[in-house]
Amino acid sequence: MARVIVGMTMSLDGFVSDRNGEVGRLYPDMEAMRQSEQLHQAIGSTGAVAMGRRSHEMGRGDYTGYEFQVPIFVLTHRAPEQVAKGENDSLTFTFVTEGVERVIDQAKAAAGDKDVTVVGGASVIHQCIEAGLADELHIDLRSVLLGEGLRLFDRSDAPPIELEPFGVSESPGVTHLRYRVRK
Amino acid sequence: MARVIVGMTMSLDGFVSDRNGEVGRLYPDMEAMRQSEQLHQAIGSTGAVAMGRRSHEMGRGDYTGYEFQVPIFVLTHRAPEQVAKGENDSLTFTFVTEGVERVIDQAKAAAGDKDVTVVGGASVIHQCIEAGLADELHIDLRSVLLGEGLRLFDRSDAPPIELEPFGVSESPGVTHLRYRVRK
Repeated sequence: MARVIVGMTMSLDGFVSDRNGEVGRLYPDMEAMRQSEQLHQAIGSTGAVAMGRRSHEMGRGDYTGYEFQVPIFVLTHRAPEQVAKGENDSLTFTFVTEGVERVIDQAKAAAGDKDVTVVGGASVIHQCIEAGLADELHIDLRSVLLGEGLRLFDRSDAPPIELEPFGVSESPGVTHLRYRVRK
Repeated sequence: MARVIVGMTMSLDGFVSDRNGEVGRLYPDMEAMRQSEQLHQAIGSTGAVAMGRRSHEMGRGDYTGYEFQVPIFVLTHRAPEQVAKGENDSLTFTFVTEGVERVIDQAKAAAGDKDVTVVGGASVIHQCIEAGLADELHIDLRSVLLGEGLRLFDRSDAPPIELEPFGVSESPGVTHLRYRVRK
C-alpha cells in the first residue's frame, strides 16, 4: 500500500525560502544532497510525485536532471500550455485542477505499491496534512536561522496534530526528521 | 570558560506556547523530562540561569521544585516587590533592568567555570542570539504541530545566522537538537 509522504527542507526557524525568495542557503551543497543516503532511499521508494504549480515552474521546463523520474501530478488552477519534459517516458506530467484530494488519488493510482512523495510547496504540504492525506512528514532541517521568508508552517486554525517520530539521521548541516502523522 | 546556552522546547512548527498561551502539549510528560539524561547534564553544567520577566512569573513565587537551584538573573523593566524563593540559599534572584548584555555579564560572573543557561522566554533568547551573546542553541523539538501560538523565532531583520549542529539525541516525542552559533 502506497504511503503519502510530504516533506521539504526547512530552516530551524521554519522557512522554506529566504526573504528574497531564494533557497540557496537551504541547499548549500546540492552535490552532497544528491549523493545522500536519504535521497537515494526516497528515489527508490517513490512511485509518483505530487507538487504545486510554483514548484513545477521552478523546474523551468526541463526535468531531465530531476531526481524523481516518475509520473508527476501538479495541483494547479489552470494547466499550462507547454509541458516540461523529463529524461524519458517514465516522467509524465498530469495537471489537476480539482483540488489536493484528487491530486493524491491520481498519484496513488500511478504509484501502485510504491510511495507518493509530495515535494512542495509549503501550501500543498499544508493542504495534505490538514486534509488528513499525509501518512508521513519528512523534514530536512537545515542548521540556519533565516530570520524572514516563506514559512513551511504558517498559522493555522486547525486543531493541533500529533506526530510520531520514527527516525532521525544526520548529514552535514542537515538533520533528517521522520514522523508518522497521527490520524 | 562559561558558555552561554540558550534554548527552549519548541513544536515542529515553531511555537513555544499554544493559541491559548498554554504549554501542556509541549510537555506532555513532565516526569520523563525531569528524569531525562539531557536535563541532568544541563543541571550539572549550569552555574547560573538567565530568564525574562514573564518566565520568572511562571514560577509563581515558588522555585523550591525548580531544576536549577543556582543564581537566577531576570531581565525586566522593573524589579518586583516580592521575590520568589528557592530551596536554599544557592538559588538567588537578581533583577536586571539595563538590558540583555548586562544580564548575561552578571550571569557569567556568577557561573564561574560553569555555563549560563538562558531558559526563555522567546524574546530573551532572540535578543541573546541577535546580540551575538549565545554560544550554543539547544532546541528540544516536540513532535506536534500546534498551528498557532507564540513563535520562538519570529520574523527578524537581522541577517541569516549559520549554526553548527554538534549533537542530536532523542527521548520519547522529543528530538534534542544542539547547535553552536557561528559568530
